[in-house]
Amino acid sequence: MDDLKIAIAGLGTVGGGTVTLLHRHADLLSARVGRRLRLVACAALEKPANLALDAIPFYSDARVMAKDADYDVLVELIGGSSGIALDVVTTALGRGRHVVTANKAMVAHHGQKLAELAEQAGVTFGFEAAVAGGIPVIKALREGLAANRLSQVYGILNGTCNYILTTMRETGREFADVLAEAQALGYAEADPSFDIDGVDTAHKLSILTSLAFGTVVDFAKVHVEGIRHVSAFDIRSAEELGYRIKLLGIARRTEDGIEQRVHPCMVPIRSSIGCVEGVFNAVVAEGDFIGRTLFEGRGAGATPTASAVVADILDIAAGRRTPTFGLPAKALAPLQVAPMEQHRGAFYIRLTVLDRPGVFADIAAALRDEEVSMEAILQRARAPGETVPVVMTVHDTLERSMTRAVERISAIGEVVEPPHLIRIEAF
Amino acid sequence: MDDLKIAIAGLGTVGGGTVTLLHRHADLLSARVGRRLRLVACAALEKPANLALDAIPFYSDARVMAKDADYDVLVELIGGSSGIALDVVTTALGRGRHVVTANKAMVAHHGQKLAELAEQAGVTFGFEAAVAGGIPVIKALREGLAANRLSQVYGILNGTCNYILTTMRETGREFADVLAEAQALGYAEADPSFDIDGVDTAHKLSILTSLAFGTVVDFAKVHVEGIRHVSAFDIRSAEELGYRIKLLGIARRTEDGIEQRVHPCMVPIRSSIGCVEGVFNAVVAEGDFIGRTLFEGRGAGATPTASAVVADILDIAAGRRTPTFGLPAKALAPLQVAPMEQHRGAFYIRLTVLDRPGVFADIAAALRDEEVSMEAILQRARAPGETVPVVMTVHDTLERSMTRAVERISAIGEVVEPPHLIRIEAF
Repeated sequence: MDDLKIAIAGLGTVGGGTVTLLHRHADLLSARVGRRLRLVACAALEKPANLALDAIPFYSDARVMAKDADYDVLVELIGGSSGIALDVVTTALGRGRHVVTANKAMVAHHGQKLAELAEQAGVTFGFEAAVAGGIPVIKALREGLAANRLSQVYGILNGTCNYILTTMRETGREFADVLAEAQALGYAEADPSFDIDGVDTAHKLSILTSLAFGTVVDFAKVHVEGIRHVSAFDIRSAEELGYRIKLLGIARRTEDGIEQRVHPCMVPIRSSIGCVEGVFNAVVAEGDFIGRTLFEGRGAGATPTASAVVADILDIAAGRRTPTFGLPAKALAPLQVAPMEQHRGAFYIRLTVLDRPGVFADIAAALRDEEVSMEAILQRARAPGETVPVVMTVHDTLERSMTRAVERISAIGEVVEPPHLIRIEAF
Repeated sequence: MDDLKIAIAGLGTVGGGTVTLLHRHADLLSARVGRRLRLVACAALEKPANLALDAIPFYSDARVMAKDADYDVLVELIGGSSGIALDVVTTALGRGRHVVTANKAMVAHHGQKLAELAEQAGVTFGFEAAVAGGIPVIKALREGLAANRLSQVYGILNGTCNYILTTMRETGREFADVLAEAQALGYAEADPSFDIDGVDTAHKLSILTSLAFGTVVDFAKVHVEGIRHVSAFDIRSAEELGYRIKLLGIARRTEDGIEQRVHPCMVPIRSSIGCVEGVFNAVVAEGDFIGRTLFEGRGAGATPTASAVVADILDIAAGRRTPTFGLPAKALAPLQVAPMEQHRGAFYIRLTVLDRPGVFADIAAALRDEEVSMEAILQRARAPGETVPVVMTVHDTLERSMTRAVERISAIGEVVEPPHLIRIEAF
């Protein structure tokens, strides 16, 4: 069979890893699919000196490569939700060429349009590398679990956040301190907000939602909260209550629509997801026939992401086709999200109060008035007349009721800081 | 596109689950692949009354159905490594029809021959359901991780054993007691030996070995030990040492060849695999690009297995083809196993000794003479002049040295029972 001709746009970390993989495992790959995978062009602002690319035509403008080069598959590793990345992908699909990308932002923002373009052209638009690179979770949802009606999919989708939260727990240090260290070590970006404010997780979650529920990918409808406000004190309290704090992306089918939310979460220490530590990612899917299944692995980095990119290329080389989001693009339904205020769940609440008689009674009354059922309340220190932290947990309650109860609690004179909430998921 | 015509041989638990799934999700499945999946024939000794099969031609002889019925895919759910199961599969492949099976014993014993038959006929021989039904691990190894050179794959592959070991730990009860209860609850077979003696795990491991290393599936070369000899005392000791006991199947690339072994194992409590409890299965794969990845889910039961069967059918319906064991059958290499006596690892040793002065010195000398390096030794009770249990752990050592050291220890007068070994894996 003819060689499969590959053009790579973007030669940063992941691009370099992909070039290395294609080179190192050339024989294994061609044995698997019965044809050679041949790198025929690459594009970047500058040609990296450390990659063996001498024999490969090089473009300093990826748009030109996308338009002019002779390739079967364009691999987009530039990044960014639009701009050059979107241009080269659109050009390639328009030319009837397959596209493979690691670009979650682009898929989250333009997935539906790109799926339609790919379908019209009869080519593949692959993005296994966009979510949890070292875990073949796109394939699992789209093919492996395709016989199930899924009830929920959730996971730890950002290794930087999980590293920070794990390190905070292990060392007792505060968020800002651990973040600074992660930046120094290269585990977090100089501008970390995409990671720590939950945007990256939300990009990935919107893709998983589409695959799990057959809906149009809809990033704008993700409820997003990050981890900046998680304190060392919260993590210690969680541990004592039998929980770990994780930044989760959760997509869940409910009577009111599909919940699609990203926020820090307390999960039981002994749950599968609670055991996932450090830079590792994990995705849990629950279906009516399989029950619960969990996939864990490295989410980012040059080599896991390259592995996912090349897995997509192998599917193309072997002629294995699956609809982009598991169903024909036209069959995807609009996403009906469940309003966040309708969410039901348990909560952890951290308060800072003046240690005076009667304050607990006032707090309990505020909860009672909103019909929020308290599970536990504990004062973490005694310092009469001074401020002390107080931790509470409440049983399953409506988000809306909780919000109102928090407003009432905030109005109590002895409560000196706005209450801080973390949702609890039983799993 | 034409309907995909399906014939099911075997209408027991999994067969019933598969019929139910095809019926319940008929619309979802046809939306995914653009054609209907139509049940056109089924065979069993007796027609079950609880399944809606009135309109479906029924055969009381699966061999006749395989030979005469008009189908595209034969689903073999009879079981057994040969006999009727092998006959109907061979007949279907000989007729150029696709085959899907949940039969690990048959794949373990005849996988290579059946892969060759399927390849000659240009059809699929699918067995996702044969290993860890609720986990799409065959697809993950064969496609998702296909760009990697794997260094090892290991896992908890038998839910019955994991349930028994978990219950022993949680309740402190002995093996025989928990097994009897598991049988009464239907979690263990009346004849449990396939499960508890490790044969079922070995069947599955031999399949994973082939997929991971591109070797001919070779069940005869699995080193197999079961869990009958694991005591409540061992489990308690493991806990105190920071371990859980799991029955693992392990396939690992070493300098001496590929290790392929099934035995009880101590794994760190905090390892991913150590967190997998109850009837759950898990498979870990380590590759040069992905690093470590773990898949966890239900291994057996009607619905997870049916999910896997139908996933294979969907691949066939969509025309997605992958070589049976990830490479063309002729390209699979003979399995060069590493001799078990060359295995290096740490060990736990349980002794029963007469509590007399000097016995520890004799044991330590026996280890020293075989160059086995002791990590810890602890006597679990004091009862001068009577027998007491003693637990030891030793650092990484050759299996051969350990065997000799155990012989020496057995010869010590105060050692009243043969020492009992459990291997430790650090993971």
